[in-house]
Amino acid sequence: MDAPPEVFKGLLDRFNGVTVDSHKEFEDAENFPEKLEKSLQYWKAQKRRAIWFSVKTEHSSWVPHLTKAGFEFHHAKQGYVVLFRWLPEDEYENIPAYAHTMLGVGGLVVNENNEVLVVCERFSLIPNSWKLPGGYAEPQENIIDAAIREVREETGIECEFNTVISLRHAHGGIFGCSDIYCVVALTPKSSDLRRCEREIAKLQWMPIAEYLEHPNVHETNRHFMRCFLDYKERGIRFTCEMGKHQVLKKEYCLYYMKPIAKDQDTSEQRGEL
Amino acid sequence: MDAPPEVFKGLLDRFNGVTVDSHKEFEDAENFPEKLEKSLQYWKAQKRRAIWFSVKTEHSSWVPHLTKAGFEFHHAKQGYVVLFRWLPEDEYENIPAYAHTMLGVGGLVVNENNEVLVVCERFSLIPNSWKLPGGYAEPQENIIDAAIREVREETGIECEFNTVISLRHAHGGIFGCSDIYCVVALTPKSSDLRRCEREIAKLQWMPIAEYLEHPNVHETNRHFMRCFLDYKERGIRFTCEMGKHQVLKKEYCLYYMKPIAKDQDTSEQRGEL
Repeated sequence: MDAPPEVFKGLLDRFNGVTVDSHKEFEDAENFPEKLEKSLQYWKAQKRRAIWFSVKTEHSSWVPHLTKAGFEFHHAKQGYVVLFRWLPEDEYENIPAYAHTMLGVGGLVVNENNEVLVVCERFSLIPNSWKLPGGYAEPQENIIDAAIREVREETGIECEFNTVISLRHAHGGIFGCSDIYCVVALTPKSSDLRRCEREIAKLQWMPIAEYLEHPNVHETNRHFMRCFLDYKERGIRFTCEMGKHQVLKKEYCLYYMKPIAKDQDTSEQRGEL
Repeated sequence: MDAPPEVFKGLLDRFNGVTVDSHKEFEDAENFPEKLEKSLQYWKAQKRRAIWFSVKTEHSSWVPHLTKAGFEFHHAKQGYVVLFRWLPEDEYENIPAYAHTMLGVGGLVVNENNEVLVVCERFSLIPNSWKLPGGYAEPQENIIDAAIREVREETGIECEFNTVISLRHAHGGIFGCSDIYCVVALTPKSSDLRRCEREIAKLQWMPIAEYLEHPNVHETNRHFMRCFLDYKERGIRFTCEMGKHQVLKKEYCLYYMKPIAKDQDTSEQRGEL
């Protein structure tokens, strides 16, 4: 049954919630409070659960009316903000929090001369420390692609995937988020360094033995290198295979431990599951 | 030098940006546009870079004025929304996106009888499919703790950590976020099932051999089990050690591959790095 004309249409979801998109149903803010009030009465009568408003930046005059009507912020990104109100009074509010994990990557790039690619950042928390090239994964970007891109942007070196080394998970980082830092071993396909002047103060190929003893290399970064050497000796890899969700038909990356086949070289491509 | 009284004070950050918190400097919205305009002129003269406004829900009358003055949404959570404006005209906007990765966990719980703990969810995308107990990690929660908590809440079984099995990384999920699903093998310390009626339709201990052939077990879930059996046979684990950042003094979890020492049982505790 369609909603009466004096209330917002919205879109019904499988949890019996309604989402109103300002882009589709923008009205002057003068009429907004009245229409909102009528809509809330209608949705309550219909036993709807969570009511969501997605408000575009240019329609932000809606926001103070929504908070006055008991809506709370849920999340926002460039272009819009999303507010919600939980209607049932006899049911526990059951709305997942928005993403709170920043995803960063580091590339452990070791060449044939047993040297590792290291950088000093321009705006480093620890001045002059030698770090692995890396940065945040972009929205929708795979971990390995992010590591390869960051190494290319910061150092000019083209690489291919070898193995995931380690994950570091910490809390209380930027924007109050937690942080997963995934270190990926990459095999370089080139050797000429091209420094990103905006972000990187200096960079070099450093012999592994020097890296493992260097006072300006953080202990955790040395640990990643010891892991890398250990995996190599053990002939095992934390590899990545692509799969596809049977119902949603969405692609995903699966990471898991796998022995290195004897006839493969160390720069195995991502396979298909 | 202090800001003049007619502009917002804000807090200066190490990137030469300014953050104004509505909680600390709330003024009536009537005066707000004028004060904002003067503040922007002042910050431009001071060569500030990113200007941030953190606006509490009860101060959301600021929001339409901010968007009118060229501010954009950055992120929001229950209680507040954050908007920003990049002031330099001769410099590329260099602001990290907010977190866009949901972090989920699944518990692969295998008992001494070679049975695995499986659940059917009440609101499942695939009806009647047998899945691993699990859910989203809470803000500030470690992966292993989240897996142990979800297994306890959904099934009543107490567990301890054995090994990380696999990560699945996919895009285009809930709220438009990407999704990391981390499967962790857990060793049960109890066996009596106590179903969470709100979320779980049915649950059971299923023999591993049956699980590996079951038509209502998704191929990826069977893959996690094969990985678990393989790691066990190989005597290797993707383990977790706690560390502390040397400068920030924040704790973190480090996950990496490690052989199982011969004299250890299979339910090793998390160690210290």
